[in-house]
Amino acid sequence: MAVDVSLVRHSAAHVLAEAVLHLYPGTKLGIGPAIEDGFYYDFLFPAPVTNNDLPAIEKEMRRIISQDHAFVRREVTKDEARHIFADQPFKLELIEGLEEGTVSVYEQDGFVDLCRGPHLESTRQIRPDAIKLRTVAGAYWRGDEKRPMLTRIYALAFADKESLAAHLKMLEEAERRDHRKLGKELDLFSTHEEAGPGLVYWHPKGGRFRVALENWWREEHYKNGYEILFTPHIGKSWLWETSGHLGFYKENMYSPMKIDEDDYYIKPMNCPFHIMVYKSQTRSYRDLPLRWAELGTVYRYERSGTLHGLMRVRGFTQDDAHIFCTPEQIESEIAEVLRFSLFMLKTLGFKEINAYLATKPKGDGSVGAPQLWAQATESLKKAIEKEGLKYEIDEGGGAFYGPKIDLKVKDAIGREWQLTTIQFDFNMSERFGIEYIDADGQRKRPYMVHRALLGSLERFFGVYLEHTAGAFPVWLSPDQVAVIPVASTFSGYVQDVVAELKKKNIRAVGLLSDERMNAKIRYAQNQKIPYMLVVGQKEQDDKTVSVRYRDGRQENAVSLGDFVAHVLDKVASNALDL
Amino acid sequence: MAVDVSLVRHSAAHVLAEAVLHLYPGTKLGIGPAIEDGFYYDFLFPAPVTNNDLPAIEKEMRRIISQDHAFVRREVTKDEARHIFADQPFKLELIEGLEEGTVSVYEQDGFVDLCRGPHLESTRQIRPDAIKLRTVAGAYWRGDEKRPMLTRIYALAFADKESLAAHLKMLEEAERRDHRKLGKELDLFSTHEEAGPGLVYWHPKGGRFRVALENWWREEHYKNGYEILFTPHIGKSWLWETSGHLGFYKENMYSPMKIDEDDYYIKPMNCPFHIMVYKSQTRSYRDLPLRWAELGTVYRYERSGTLHGLMRVRGFTQDDAHIFCTPEQIESEIAEVLRFSLFMLKTLGFKEINAYLATKPKGDGSVGAPQLWAQATESLKKAIEKEGLKYEIDEGGGAFYGPKIDLKVKDAIGREWQLTTIQFDFNMSERFGIEYIDADGQRKRPYMVHRALLGSLERFFGVYLEHTAGAFPVWLSPDQVAVIPVASTFSGYVQDVVAELKKKNIRAVGLLSDERMNAKIRYAQNQKIPYMLVVGQKEQDDKTVSVRYRDGRQENAVSLGDFVAHVLDKVASNALDL
Repeated sequence: MAVDVSLVRHSAAHVLAEAVLHLYPGTKLGIGPAIEDGFYYDFLFPAPVTNNDLPAIEKEMRRIISQDHAFVRREVTKDEARHIFADQPFKLELIEGLEEGTVSVYEQDGFVDLCRGPHLESTRQIRPDAIKLRTVAGAYWRGDEKRPMLTRIYALAFADKESLAAHLKMLEEAERRDHRKLGKELDLFSTHEEAGPGLVYWHPKGGRFRVALENWWREEHYKNGYEILFTPHIGKSWLWETSGHLGFYKENMYSPMKIDEDDYYIKPMNCPFHIMVYKSQTRSYRDLPLRWAELGTVYRYERSGTLHGLMRVRGFTQDDAHIFCTPEQIESEIAEVLRFSLFMLKTLGFKEINAYLATKPKGDGSVGAPQLWAQATESLKKAIEKEGLKYEIDEGGGAFYGPKIDLKVKDAIGREWQLTTIQFDFNMSERFGIEYIDADGQRKRPYMVHRALLGSLERFFGVYLEHTAGAFPVWLSPDQVAVIPVASTFSGYVQDVVAELKKKNIRAVGLLSDERMNAKIRYAQNQKIPYMLVVGQKEQDDKTVSVRYRDGRQENAVSLGDFVAHVLDKVASNALDL
Repeated sequence: MAVDVSLVRHSAAHVLAEAVLHLYPGTKLGIGPAIEDGFYYDFLFPAPVTNNDLPAIEKEMRRIISQDHAFVRREVTKDEARHIFADQPFKLELIEGLEEGTVSVYEQDGFVDLCRGPHLESTRQIRPDAIKLRTVAGAYWRGDEKRPMLTRIYALAFADKESLAAHLKMLEEAERRDHRKLGKELDLFSTHEEAGPGLVYWHPKGGRFRVALENWWREEHYKNGYEILFTPHIGKSWLWETSGHLGFYKENMYSPMKIDEDDYYIKPMNCPFHIMVYKSQTRSYRDLPLRWAELGTVYRYERSGTLHGLMRVRGFTQDDAHIFCTPEQIESEIAEVLRFSLFMLKTLGFKEINAYLATKPKGDGSVGAPQLWAQATESLKKAIEKEGLKYEIDEGGGAFYGPKIDLKVKDAIGREWQLTTIQFDFNMSERFGIEYIDADGQRKRPYMVHRALLGSLERFFGVYLEHTAGAFPVWLSPDQVAVIPVASTFSGYVQDVVAELKKKNIRAVGLLSDERMNAKIRYAQNQKIPYMLVVGQKEQDDKTVSVRYRDGRQENAVSLGDFVAHVLDKVASNALDL
């Protein structure tokens, strides 16, 4: 029977800690949890340890593993635990934080660790060739910058050798596709530490991608019954007090700006602004549903250590929408939001999309009557089932203000990314007291749903860069066509061809520098330009072009008219192929 | 010979002050300058004065005017002046602020005012029927909130009765077109005092206008060789110290937000961000010119008392661009910017456009070598002349960092609005040290030009609302077509027609409520919808529509295909007519 890989990761972490104590006596132990592809362990070493030391530690781990030590669980009192970990100050601190009663510890080969378990039966169940120490990194104890900086050792751990090999291959591929690397090579965006980390500058070529994406996004939203709003980036404290953000979200918000005598906050979310528009007039049941979308740029605090290219930033443009509807409309509205989201994600080329449904948290913390939660959760579930999506339920995992669905897409190398979120909000509608007049003349509370489809344009751009390795579909490519002369004598014809393509709104660029043709072809390939038109004497005489596709195909003597029609068709149909 | 209207305004202000002292002895006098359409005078009245008191004051003014009093100038020492205005504390304060030497005063009918002059010869030159007291308003002494609040009386004053009448008619028309009124009636936008005054919320219909405008703007910018950037709304103090904004612009900026240990400011301008992109790589002369545009939302402090609808706000989206070019390119680049700006403004329907050229300020305050100023100013002048624009030169009126052209458009009722500004910047390029490598291998400083074409989307929206009285061209109309059944039995056909139009991306709305047809027609007229399609039995049978144009024309039995083609043609050509 195959071993449970999470037990492997968990148990291997203990083996790592044991190996470290063998090689570096006096090391203080932090925590060592299992993570997505392995585990890590935080240590305070008596002397600095670097990546160069990892092979020796790995060797010691293999030695321990091969000796077939059992993992033995014991329940001890907190006092006994304090005694066991007397020279491990971080463990002592963890013990203090535990509830009263007994504490579980696990022991193998004389090494004892504080641990809830469960674990493998024996170190022999760990495949030594399925474990790999990857790297060391600094990590503050408990993530707190004011506490000591520990050394974190990251490890990959799988059930068997083949899984590790596949994962290493994926990592290599991921590195090749790193959006920060591609962003530089393709001159798409930059961030500037000195002007503020985590803030994205879209360069001309990134801008073309974004404009093409936004145009399509707006057009599809209009076609699907949405309206588009534009709202301010700052709001007076009244707005954030009313919304409750200053209560439950303040640590993610920036400190206020003073304007006259008032505090203004830069927005971390768009919702309160949409509610102000809702409240700007009396709404009737006849006006509902309202589907209001905005490409709203929001700013949220993230620790500087967690910032990462486009994936984790401090300012980002949510492709946000809010739905206001009656209880009668909620089921069809949710189904419609989900259908539309899937249509958009599939158009972008994501084939495998999974749903994650988070339901009402346990306990008393949540707002909204039980029947609201029940109807909302039911409508989410029905919508998922209607679309035939695979889904997991995270029982009790919803926010205090409503249940939600997250959609995660699988990228080209099998990684999962959360993009879409569809989220009920019973809190905001209540706090702002939004209403509509129903057919019976009564004032009623509409349902309010938040939705971000791509999540944010910045993060989506990063995901999409890694998914496509920068080889965007034609309609999203910053340069769609590169025109290259076989020799400089054909520059005039190149310019004619480029002008003709531009007249048709095709993003064409003529490569007219002094460089050799092969260097230009290499440039166009490196820039992932979908089409290269190479022109020489024959093409000039026949008014044709030779087409080289990004995927390697080649066609000669193509009439320019046919080529234009081909490109325009690919653009108009948002085609994924060339 | 016609009298100089500015002398009329100036002199009438003195007559107003005299009349006020006759009727309200003990009134303290502030200042009373001539303004664009008349004059005002600030008073501290012994008891409140309201609009209801204006007729009596006006009557007293007419009495004084009819008596033919000469305006007599005298030069007095500051001491004598202090004696004359012994019971006028505000005048005494003004006297203290004057340079040493003599002071001029003017006297008519025993009333003396501190004044530089010149004035009319006699009150008889004022036409009593060309003067009209308009309104009272509060105004702080010297515009300072900490000084006393005075009562300002605004007056219209012209050389003759006809000019006043024409102006009153224009004002009435302006009131009818007030963008704040239209904004509400057409449900286009709102501002919310409680969430922060001067911050604009674009409603769904305003959003449709903005999306149509932005789409056109982006498309034309791409067609005309611009690239589009997207940059953050906040930047660390380093950026604003480097740019110099924290030195010379701080009073217009909001107070900083603390992020980690750094101060961040919300941007009042986009330029430093574009420069960061420029500096993100080495630029060669071959890369220039760079034309980088952004719809960048900026935030600037304006006193709350000066905020006015969309015209003066605290947050606005500049349709900004920065040009970076070589000295050899500057003349053609400026000509191109101006040509493009005029093309855009004319497409929007502005026929009369005047230029205002502001040149190097006198004194030592300006940056940039004299030959830079000379070449830049020359290129501006040549561009204006090439386009055959009427222009005025504001000698010495440029900013310290470079000369500029402003373009002002005349609106439908003859008012002038500044929209475009084209502005050299010798300061920012120097402060950030931006460079390019020239053909000779030398590092050189490029020219940098700021340009805002419409100025800001918010203010432009306000101007355009008042210019068109809300009757936008088809391509910018939030609703392009209203479809109205003569009776509810034809609702099905209405829905078919609407669906058909929407399929063609025409913004169509079916009016299917229980109201009577005439009420719906009135609604469509009030909403300034360009086309109304009225359908009944005959239309349903023949698959046609009856078209009512917004301008009153009407056509029956039009095939839907012909109507669609008509609308699409108007949209595609940005037509101003229907």
